[in-house]
Amino acid sequence: MRGGVSIDLSQMSQIIRVSAEDLDCTVQAGVTREQLNAHLRDQGLFFPIDPGANASIGGMAATRASGTNAVRYGTMRENVLSLTVVLPTGQIIRTGGRARKSSAGYDLTRLFVGSEGTLGIITEVILRLQGVPETISAALCSFESVEQAVKAAIAIVQLAIPISRIELLDRGLIAASNAYSGLSLKIEDTLAFEFHGSPASAQEQVELVAEIVKDHGGKDFEWANAPEERNRLWKARHNAFYAVVSQRPNAKGWSSDVCVPVSELSGCILRTRALLQECSVPAAILGHVGDGNYHVVFAVDPENTAELTEVAAINEAMVEHAISVGGTSTGEHGVGTGKIGYLRQEHGDAVELMALLKQAIDPQGIMNPGKILPV
Amino acid sequence: MRGGVSIDLSQMSQIIRVSAEDLDCTVQAGVTREQLNAHLRDQGLFFPIDPGANASIGGMAATRASGTNAVRYGTMRENVLSLTVVLPTGQIIRTGGRARKSSAGYDLTRLFVGSEGTLGIITEVILRLQGVPETISAALCSFESVEQAVKAAIAIVQLAIPISRIELLDRGLIAASNAYSGLSLKIEDTLAFEFHGSPASAQEQVELVAEIVKDHGGKDFEWANAPEERNRLWKARHNAFYAVVSQRPNAKGWSSDVCVPVSELSGCILRTRALLQECSVPAAILGHVGDGNYHVVFAVDPENTAELTEVAAINEAMVEHAISVGGTSTGEHGVGTGKIGYLRQEHGDAVELMALLKQAIDPQGIMNPGKILPV
Ligand SMILES: Cc1cc2nc3c(=O)[nH]c(=O)nc-3n(C[C@H](O)[C@H](O)[C@H](O)COP(=O)(O)OP(=O)(O)OC[C@H]3O[C@@H](n4cnc5c(N)ncnc54)[C@H](O)[C@@H]3O)c2cc1C
Ligand SMILES: Cc1cc2nc3c(=O)[nH]c(=O)nc-3n(C[C@H](O)[C@H](O)[C@H](O)COP(=O)(O)OP(=O)(O)OC[C@H]3O[C@@H](n4cnc5c(N)ncnc54)[C@H](O)[C@@H]3O)c2cc1C
Repeated sequence: MRGGVSIDLSQMSQIIRVSAEDLDCTVQAGVTREQLNAHLRDQGLFFPIDPGANASIGGMAATRASGTNAVRYGTMRENVLSLTVVLPTGQIIRTGGRARKSSAGYDLTRLFVGSEGTLGIITEVILRLQGVPETISAALCSFESVEQAVKAAIAIVQLAIPISRIELLDRGLIAASNAYSGLSLKIEDTLAFEFHGSPASAQEQVELVAEIVKDHGGKDFEWANAPEERNRLWKARHNAFYAVVSQRPNAKGWSSDVCVPVSELSGCILRTRALLQECSVPAAILGHVGDGNYHVVFAVDPENTAELTEVAAINEAMVEHAISVGGTSTGEHGVGTGKIGYLRQEHGDAVELMALLKQAIDPQGIMNPGKILPV
Repeated sequence: MRGGVSIDLSQMSQIIRVSAEDLDCTVQAGVTREQLNAHLRDQGLFFPIDPGANASIGGMAATRASGTNAVRYGTMRENVLSLTVVLPTGQIIRTGGRARKSSAGYDLTRLFVGSEGTLGIITEVILRLQGVPETISAALCSFESVEQAVKAAIAIVQLAIPISRIELLDRGLIAASNAYSGLSLKIEDTLAFEFHGSPASAQEQVELVAEIVKDHGGKDFEWANAPEERNRLWKARHNAFYAVVSQRPNAKGWSSDVCVPVSELSGCILRTRALLQECSVPAAILGHVGDGNYHVVFAVDPENTAELTEVAAINEAMVEHAISVGGTSTGEHGVGTGKIGYLRQEHGDAVELMALLKQAIDPQGIMNPGKILPV
């Protein structure tokens, strides 16, 4: 922040209250996702939103984070019950209560979820929790084309199979992950699945999914039922970003995400992949494809402006196409400064309403100036 | 509206687009829930939000409506993807796109869902849809006490059984419904369930629920698998309001709802029932108990001020207690004019932020003046 101060909330790391009966908890904003889940484990509970990174709950609320489990459990939008927020005036408000639903006035909770610190500082969060499922199993399946993989994923979602994770790892990513995480996966476009439920329901999901992937040319459906195997699989997925970056000495990671209606997903990913094939920078595609969301990660040389220009052009093409098919410029990473330029293209005149809200709540522009909206 | 005009959107009744692949649709605001579901039936789709009444989709979005299926499918909050809104300035905006999730700026969709027409007029709605489940079955079970019934419902929710409906009908309501809908149900506190899923998953849910209700003293678990039986059951539930009112000639219905953390539900309902026992006006309790939400319906004589005062006092006690245990003054009916008085008690200083938003978006106060916030 130029000429400003930034606020460190990492000391606000208290888990204030957990209710197993109501499946909710209250935490301070600096509590991290991993800290919370370690705390909940003994009570048979977990907090499902998993953006991979060990982010703070306040940061996750501020960016409307999402991640691998969203296809089943939703995003921060669905899982925050209430926030305590310090407004720019210094006034402290609570945006909601502990009831599962409410029609009592404007939805202030959702106004602050995803506001990226531009409307106020989140200090406390009430979250919905889930019971740890009786059975968790995971599987991997490779496909000859990304198209087949995506079509299989869409069919699974359309049949409303209550699957917990469907992740696409493209062949480039598999190669990078093999090297980085010491795996020996087949270098093909791959879907990774996770199933939660009672033993019978998990089994039923698995059978349905196995049938669907077979119909879409999926091969080598491989199980990972032991917790260690599963952890290894998801750890590799979570390390995808670093795996891509590690392919090149002294590279930095540069990533972007979009989200589109699932019927458009396959077309979008194929277009993006064609752009990557022309690109001089190592890159990979991965995605929470059950939601229509995918990411591109580039391993860029941050000193090389030609590279940065090349990457920016690919990002622009990807984002503009996503918007043109009814999608969004960012499914889960947020606007920050990087996507401000696409806001009007995506939202049209609604951007003026966003600016009006910002102006009303933070007239002096002291909260994260330059994020989401141009100053 | 005193000295104002009201706007009739019932002619805006076009279903603009349905996508079976993306499980979404775009409708004009005047389309009704029943009209939409009749249209979707042939495509194997349905729109799950069911407040009983054949409300318009615009009205349901405006009131953040909910109803019997919310325990599984969420409320309008979770099922509206985007709105087209005419702002008080006459400017027309679209609040979102068709992607399942987005982090691209402030959540304008959720700001307008539940704003009860006070921020703008909704003209078009993009909704999420669901595939019609392969199996639908329903059941009724009576209990010796409302406490047992509620505890059974809570246990079902805590075990994350993906049940689609858990409705409480108290004994007063059963008596009224028997008379009004020509049923012969046992006059006891009753839970009504609906199960959606594959045959195996529905069967598993049924078995788990049967076991739980037995543990809580449930009796006479009765199935209604045939569509006609099921329709009769839910029709009686949907007619509950009219059944209560019909108990008394020339009476008018007067209803209120609250929503609380499920651990508090049984205590709240017992307190409300004790108040009703002292009350001279016929009344019944019913509820979407899986969400912690319940309603009281009174059959009042609208000319009798003593009665209206009595009913208002019971409502006040119920609402204030709900707020005191972390709940909300209204789970799904909205604030309107009747619950304005509880807004500060529930939201504290956050009410000032609501007023600030109203002032920013509708500075002249032309949109539904006097609703949600005092003029
Ligand atoms: C390797 C990697 C992989 C990722 N993968 C995913 C993914 O799959 N899905 C996904 O959704 N996200 C993903 N992310 C993004 C991640 O969700 C966000 O970075 C994270 O939620 C931000 O939390 P943080 O605590 O790191 O916040 P920070 O990075 O510190 O802050 C993020 C933003 O929120 C604001 N902010 C932070 N705390 C508060 C607060 N208390 N009150 C108000 N504003 C606040 C900051 O000002 C900033 O604008 C990934 C990130 C990394 C590094
Ligand atoms: C018998 C009965 C049972 C009910 N049970 C339930 C239940 O179980 N769960 C539940 O959630 N609700 C329930 N309701 C309430 C019901 O959900 C609402 O009445 C309904 O959603 C309102 O829709 P409507 O089309 O009737 O709107 P109206 O009654 O016409 O309007 C309701 C409010 O929304 C505003 N509004 C309407 N359309 C628009 C628009 N296009 N743009 C902006 N503002 C608009 C109006 O100004 C008004 O303030 C019940 C109602 C009845 C009559």
